[in-house]
Amino acid sequence: MPSSSLLLSRRDLDFQLYDWLDAEALTRRARYAEHSRETFDDALDLSERIATRHFAPHNKKNDQEEPWFDGEQVHTVKEVSEALGVFAESGLLAAAVDEEYGGMGMPHTVATACFSYFQAANVGTSAYPFLTLGNARLLCAHGSREQIDTFVRPMLEGRFFGTMCLSEPQAGSSLADVATRAEPQPDGTYRLFGTKMWISGGDHELSENIVHLVLARVPGGPAGVKGLSLFVVPKYLVGPDGSPGERNDVVPAGLNHKMGYRGTTNTLLNFGEGAHHRPGGTPGAVGHLVGDEHRGLAYMFHMMNGARIGVGAGAMALGYTGYLKSLAYARERPQGRALAAGGKDAAAPQVPIVQHPDVRRMLLAQKSYVEGALGLLLYCSMLVDEQRSAAAEEDRARAELLLDVLTPIAKSWPSQWCLEANSLAIQVHGGYGYTREYDVEQHYRDNRLNPIHEGTHGIQGLDLLGRKVVQHGGAGLRALDGAVRETLRRAEAAGGEAAALAGTLGGYWERATTVTARLWESGDPETALANSSVYLEAVGHVVVAWIWLGQFLATLSADRADAGAEAFLRGKQQAARYFFRVELPRTGPQFDLLAALDTVAAETDPDWL
Amino acid sequence: MPSSSLLLSRRDLDFQLYDWLDAEALTRRARYAEHSRETFDDALDLSERIATRHFAPHNKKNDQEEPWFDGEQVHTVKEVSEALGVFAESGLLAAAVDEEYGGMGMPHTVATACFSYFQAANVGTSAYPFLTLGNARLLCAHGSREQIDTFVRPMLEGRFFGTMCLSEPQAGSSLADVATRAEPQPDGTYRLFGTKMWISGGDHELSENIVHLVLARVPGGPAGVKGLSLFVVPKYLVGPDGSPGERNDVVPAGLNHKMGYRGTTNTLLNFGEGAHHRPGGTPGAVGHLVGDEHRGLAYMFHMMNGARIGVGAGAMALGYTGYLKSLAYARERPQGRALAAGGKDAAAPQVPIVQHPDVRRMLLAQKSYVEGALGLLLYCSMLVDEQRSAAAEEDRARAELLLDVLTPIAKSWPSQWCLEANSLAIQVHGGYGYTREYDVEQHYRDNRLNPIHEGTHGIQGLDLLGRKVVQHGGAGLRALDGAVRETLRRAEAAGGEAAALAGTLGGYWERATTVTARLWESGDPETALANSSVYLEAVGHVVVAWIWLGQFLATLSADRADAGAEAFLRGKQQAARYFFRVELPRTGPQFDLLAALDTVAAETDPDWL
Repeated sequence: MPSSSLLLSRRDLDFQLYDWLDAEALTRRARYAEHSRETFDDALDLSERIATRHFAPHNKKNDQEEPWFDGEQVHTVKEVSEALGVFAESGLLAAAVDEEYGGMGMPHTVATACFSYFQAANVGTSAYPFLTLGNARLLCAHGSREQIDTFVRPMLEGRFFGTMCLSEPQAGSSLADVATRAEPQPDGTYRLFGTKMWISGGDHELSENIVHLVLARVPGGPAGVKGLSLFVVPKYLVGPDGSPGERNDVVPAGLNHKMGYRGTTNTLLNFGEGAHHRPGGTPGAVGHLVGDEHRGLAYMFHMMNGARIGVGAGAMALGYTGYLKSLAYARERPQGRALAAGGKDAAAPQVPIVQHPDVRRMLLAQKSYVEGALGLLLYCSMLVDEQRSAAAEEDRARAELLLDVLTPIAKSWPSQWCLEANSLAIQVHGGYGYTREYDVEQHYRDNRLNPIHEGTHGIQGLDLLGRKVVQHGGAGLRALDGAVRETLRRAEAAGGEAAALAGTLGGYWERATTVTARLWESGDPETALANSSVYLEAVGHVVVAWIWLGQFLATLSADRADAGAEAFLRGKQQAARYFFRVELPRTGPQFDLLAALDTVAAETDPDWL
Repeated sequence: MPSSSLLLSRRDLDFQLYDWLDAEALTRRARYAEHSRETFDDALDLSERIATRHFAPHNKKNDQEEPWFDGEQVHTVKEVSEALGVFAESGLLAAAVDEEYGGMGMPHTVATACFSYFQAANVGTSAYPFLTLGNARLLCAHGSREQIDTFVRPMLEGRFFGTMCLSEPQAGSSLADVATRAEPQPDGTYRLFGTKMWISGGDHELSENIVHLVLARVPGGPAGVKGLSLFVVPKYLVGPDGSPGERNDVVPAGLNHKMGYRGTTNTLLNFGEGAHHRPGGTPGAVGHLVGDEHRGLAYMFHMMNGARIGVGAGAMALGYTGYLKSLAYARERPQGRALAAGGKDAAAPQVPIVQHPDVRRMLLAQKSYVEGALGLLLYCSMLVDEQRSAAAEEDRARAELLLDVLTPIAKSWPSQWCLEANSLAIQVHGGYGYTREYDVEQHYRDNRLNPIHEGTHGIQGLDLLGRKVVQHGGAGLRALDGAVRETLRRAEAAGGEAAALAGTLGGYWERATTVTARLWESGDPETALANSSVYLEAVGHVVVAWIWLGQFLATLSADRADAGAEAFLRGKQQAARYFFRVELPRTGPQFDLLAALDTVAAETDPDWL
């Protein structure tokens, strides 16, 4: 049943979840025993239905009438609140949380697929619950029982929303410079003072309360990131009965007006500036410490890894829906004639532009990016499930290592290439695609945020090359090496074209590991890291080629029973071929540059620019 | 004297015009004998001053309060009209037109540099005069004396504005399908009926009149592009005294709302729909034939080549100003610490982000794109001057061939890579760059139009590979080959690093010519053209490397007298090295794909997508 919603292809989701990743096997594990293919499919159906009916229709409106600030509070168009009400009602948010916290314990893999529908339909509106989910998961992992009862349960019910407050105007990529101060109080609470920047969902009237998770510094602690502690700071203080009461001293000081992603309000937030200070009371915003002092960044990273994969998923979803829309347009729009049929013979009828090879090239490129990105994200989500549910400790540890090393790629690769997909989707539409009457224009603007937030592209490069591939004595890279070689072996065993693809990938993978070693052989972090962004891009492309090889293998044994299966599987194979022939070779000159330890950029004196 | 306007670098302009291209030599030719380095410099000074004072300040306002249509006519913010008044007053528009038409006969090369300041400052507002100039030049070349007197003179005085009306809702890339009809009348005029789409400057109240140049079909003529004729259709009919009088039957039917480039109104225009039809009069919009019937497309191409180079220049200018703004930001913005200085040591003060190697990489990449693009466009402009003023017929013919083959690259390369530069400019700004408070956000949106209008990227690829390199028995490619080899010889003679760069470029150029031959050896246009966009990109990169080699050579002998010269020339050399080490090798896999006659996209069945 191919999708008609133009959000994601359900046929592709089914193929990736069941034919390739065998997500159904998860239901044989104790943790997911309550589930079945039917409950998975029901959740996917429900997600597509709600996303199509309640999220997609106001996507453009939420862009054109972005949230506004009246000096006191932030307002959003009414459709946002309606959509979020339906979403809360559906129970999907809680679906991805463990039963002990009031959830349904659905595998992360299925939740990722479900949530992608919402991101494809309306990335601005869907950010509210997804930020809330990240917040809730962090508190489940590191908060006290009381914090979970007070804040997590209402978040999972959709009554409270959550944020994460890390950046400050002077501290974005450099969290070591966070200056917000948290003064301990005799009653065990803290009072916070400072300003946080880029806070998505930082203020609105969409929920009964907003639960801010805030990085701040307890006076007397170590300098830098080692002195950061994490606090829950609710917009309204919560009474003993759990209901929101008095206003806490957290106030929006203004909104950021973005190129895209406009539906998600983004605020500058002041903590403890005195706007809600009761005469005679202690000044500052009331905060509750999460876990121990000075361990805030480690806790936040727990959320940030999930958030980074979420950014990749959002980028993928925008790329995916843009692909489907440009494909639909290319099938309908008549323009010009096929070269084979005489080219400029004006007496012949025009053909749909999908008949032109260059348009097919742009569509196939998009397909290879978005289906590759979906695969990467579902694979990473499977690793989360593996980490949670594998029987052997060894398998759980291996999943964690793999997830760690893949996270910067899962964040950055879709952000780069699914943005490129959106650019191609515009190009397929021609001038129409550049107008705000067509969806692809907005997708491109929305998607441009993704290489920036949750750690820029450059930060991901440093994370991958400077941390992930070297930490634990290189165990992360070894785990990835094992996973890649396992796929190569299966492809070689399959013979024919699969074996040929494996031969190609094997060469590039060898190159990636050799270059990694070469970079660190230099013994000089500055030289090693001079081109870490290039490294990120090259390794990212090789990793996605590996994902494509896995999918190619799955086509060989997939069920061809229903009418559209054959064409779908041929398309899947063709996209894999495209990726291997056109995309993978791009990494050759990148690896050459890295292997040469090139420092042309690093050695450039700022005065020469 | 480095520029402080952050529009273009005047030092770079001076270097490219005088040290590299020796534009001053033009003043020794009869055609430009009235000019001198002083008149050139005065024009550049004047352009920078007017662009800075009158165009840049309302760039954002013209984006945020885009032109609006009240159902009758189109309105723009008042600053547009004020700026255009100052521009008209300056005489700069006429400067680039021959004296016999009331111009100042300034070389095209200098005019391109001057006009780039306006495009960098405000691409939306500057489109009005530049479209007018293209229109005026076409009429000078192909119109009658009476058409020149009636329409061109007021355009050069800034009283009338011009448009070009080619596309229709059903005919964009495929001009063979233009359906607008032109019925001949007994008085020698024509009456036009039809709808034109994407008409920039199609309606407004900024000028006394609007002079539309319209492609239409005289009934009974050949089908396809061979049956198109060109007409002048003024918004207001012009009386015998030259003053605009009665309204012609051309009316805006609506505006296109674009992602960027919003300051230039873009309309759907109806011709002869009856809105201004006098009872008893003959219906239709009054049009005057330009030249002969059925030769309209050839005339229009005369304008389109100039317009395509103008698109490239606009893309370059947006890229250039974005580069300078992100450089200024990188020098000011403190964030993090240099790795060498301990990286995360929070006790050390933060450093400006230009100190981080990855930020320098993003700046150097931008520099290599925007200065390379400027070089390409100035070189093409020099070819226009050569075509007009070279003493020998042979040199004029060679310049024309070279210009023909370079036009698709001059249009598409800056559109692709200076858009990428704008993306990097955003990335250097981090989250701030994604907000509408910073200029680079708008530059990116504005620049996204350039790969679409005046012939999409795909159309340019077909033009280059399907026409320009094969026409006249391959003479265009041979002319380019001669020009490239001339630079290679000079670089080899210079020895040292220049010779080494020549060795590298020689290899890639050899590859480009071999692959071109290989593609056409197939004898099958479908196979040859299957990857024409890839060909366009690969050859474009090699051509820009050649431009960079020319600039590198010029640094060796450039004057180092003033204080900043040394640093500037080192930066110029470094950008050349960056282009050769990081950019040029990207073409290797592209040539491999082309040489393999790969058809993975072409052979994809639309049903598989």
